[in-house]
Amino acid sequence: MKSRFNFFIPTRILFGPGKLADLGSTPFLPGKRALVVISSGGSMRKQGYLDRLVAALEKNGASSIVYDKILPNPISRHVEEGARVAMENRCDFVIGLGGGSSIDSAKSIAVMARNPGEYWDYVIGGSGKGRKPLGGALPIVAIPTTAGTGTESDLWTVITKTETQEKIGWGADCTFPVLSVVDPELMLSVPPELTAYQGMDAFFHAAEGYLARANQPASDRFALEAIGLITKHLPEAVKDGSNLEARTALAWASTEAGFVESLSCCISHHSLEHAISAFHPEVPHGAGLIMTSVAYFTYLAERSPARFADMAAAMGENTAAMKEGDRPFAFITALRRLIERVGMAGLGPETFGIRKDEAAAIVKNAMETMGGLFALTPVKFSAADAETIFENCFR
Amino acid sequence: MKSRFNFFIPTRILFGPGKLADLGSTPFLPGKRALVVISSGGSMRKQGYLDRLVAALEKNGASSIVYDKILPNPISRHVEEGARVAMENRCDFVIGLGGGSSIDSAKSIAVMARNPGEYWDYVIGGSGKGRKPLGGALPIVAIPTTAGTGTESDLWTVITKTETQEKIGWGADCTFPVLSVVDPELMLSVPPELTAYQGMDAFFHAAEGYLARANQPASDRFALEAIGLITKHLPEAVKDGSNLEARTALAWASTEAGFVESLSCCISHHSLEHAISAFHPEVPHGAGLIMTSVAYFTYLAERSPARFADMAAAMGENTAAMKEGDRPFAFITALRRLIERVGMAGLGPETFGIRKDEAAAIVKNAMETMGGLFALTPVKFSAADAETIFENCFR
Repeated sequence: MKSRFNFFIPTRILFGPGKLADLGSTPFLPGKRALVVISSGGSMRKQGYLDRLVAALEKNGASSIVYDKILPNPISRHVEEGARVAMENRCDFVIGLGGGSSIDSAKSIAVMARNPGEYWDYVIGGSGKGRKPLGGALPIVAIPTTAGTGTESDLWTVITKTETQEKIGWGADCTFPVLSVVDPELMLSVPPELTAYQGMDAFFHAAEGYLARANQPASDRFALEAIGLITKHLPEAVKDGSNLEARTALAWASTEAGFVESLSCCISHHSLEHAISAFHPEVPHGAGLIMTSVAYFTYLAERSPARFADMAAAMGENTAAMKEGDRPFAFITALRRLIERVGMAGLGPETFGIRKDEAAAIVKNAMETMGGLFALTPVKFSAADAETIFENCFR
Repeated sequence: MKSRFNFFIPTRILFGPGKLADLGSTPFLPGKRALVVISSGGSMRKQGYLDRLVAALEKNGASSIVYDKILPNPISRHVEEGARVAMENRCDFVIGLGGGSSIDSAKSIAVMARNPGEYWDYVIGGSGKGRKPLGGALPIVAIPTTAGTGTESDLWTVITKTETQEKIGWGADCTFPVLSVVDPELMLSVPPELTAYQGMDAFFHAAEGYLARANQPASDRFALEAIGLITKHLPEAVKDGSNLEARTALAWASTEAGFVESLSCCISHHSLEHAISAFHPEVPHGAGLIMTSVAYFTYLAERSPARFADMAAAMGENTAAMKEGDRPFAFITALRRLIERVGMAGLGPETFGIRKDEAAAIVKNAMETMGGLFALTPVKFSAADAETIFENCFR
């Protein structure tokens, strides 16, 4: 057992089918006037989720206004604009309703509604100035409608600066949601492809956090359980989106993987993906992770096999029956099988027109913007090694 | 998987050997002037822990004064007196240093330093008036020197009202410590007998929380890991108190079991013990739990066997090789063996001069003061049933 670590997960989580309605009576609403942050895509209105949220807030004595410009890869300009809207309308808390893009934007807006200057002044990494947000943040409420990001139970917020092609995650105590409502019923309408991308994102949060040098006993428990739940239930939810039991298990796995990201950390697999989707914003985050995962984890398992066997066992592989040297690679086998079962076996960088000769630029971006995660990776590798991994992602 | 629950553990925990010194530099100290609450026994001074704490606080720019009257079964009069001392000295936070009695007193003092009236006005259960502590509480810092109570990672505070022979646990959001420093080096000096009592207390927090109707996925994970760690390491620490690895594992198990108490709940085993030690204050809490445990859990396993097999497996029992009907009772076997290995096989109510004919009075007290835990117990039982269990504790 690792013997020295810090533990901190201050978010209050209301979990379960139908919990959205609890916002109408919960004593834990952190304010009286909410800025509700949603995507520009229109699905929160179409599905009726926005109306249900607004009605629940009103029942609980809170008014709200809506900011609805968030893009799939959310950008800093909208963070700054959203913060102005919050301040002009005297909002005293911010709600992110939707996928990771809306919730992360809500987190970042909450910071900028309490601090001067530009958003990139507070970002840690890349050209971010790493200033401390001394004003804190407005209280943040997260209501995820996807199971993947984990942002409902972690401090991280990932925003892209268009001008510099940087997609950077950072966080502080004040960017933990004070309240998250995780209602799997809101996830029933996610189409199969997105279900797979998002579920695999949660899977990699758990797997990376289990491998990261920053692992700790509690993150280990959450990680292995999330890995097991996703392996079992993600193929079910991809096959039949209306399976509430599978959706519920995946929602909890995503939340657990968020705990893992809070207590431990992602590793350079996530840095690489952020660089890929900074250059190719049309690549869904989960797709970028899936297409790089087999090459990435194989490279790691060859050089630092410890802990891979635990993950393989959590995925249901009978590692006890294997030779010790084979056990770590049972994880790679199980990962390939899971990717196949969620219908993503054909996915590669080529699918999105990404070229092998982008390796150097992508690795440079990954190391410059999210180099910290390389330090937490159990294997030390050079830019050349990372380029090799990137090139191995092509068939 | 249980599908509806709430999750909330707001305490920040600094865990590991040597972490006490981190108080000298942590940015998370919640104030500038501390009331340090310790027991009347003198060991915090003798061991040098108090001096080390005061020095660390000073290094971090905080002054402190000491309240040193806490009894092993802490009483409400000292809570009220400690609160007056805190207010008179303008303390802006309260530190509990020691076992559960000192930390629980610190929690209750923190409440009374912010709220009018008497302590029992705020206690929920028995003759407590259940008033809401609208003033909140001063920020609480917990520094346990024992591995057992879990109070470092839960909201509960257990105080006895001498006049009415009531020993009642209650809690609120404001009684979660904001910061806990769990340093296993401070536990090296605990003598074998107390090590056993305290470790078994943590064991029962985990086991009861696993069985309670209020269980949830995260408490399940923490509970089973704590049960496993205690089964393995408690006999080691009882045998050799200087075994830092064992002390570290037990410190984490106690903290995990505190999480279990926060997310799930103890059941009526704890109600029974509180009643016993309310009538017999010389009975250590852990001893009271041990002497009632085999009769109590046997009664439960016979009537509600679900979940007992999981706990048996966590204790290392090879349940897979057993007939299904035998698996729940493998927990009872393992429990008996653990009690034996920690040197407590001879312990019974008779050890403390408790008589069988106290059954009715003790059960009445348990149901009146901590009846809520009966409702969370997976088996419904009458006063007569509880009396039978009590009588079965005698040899």
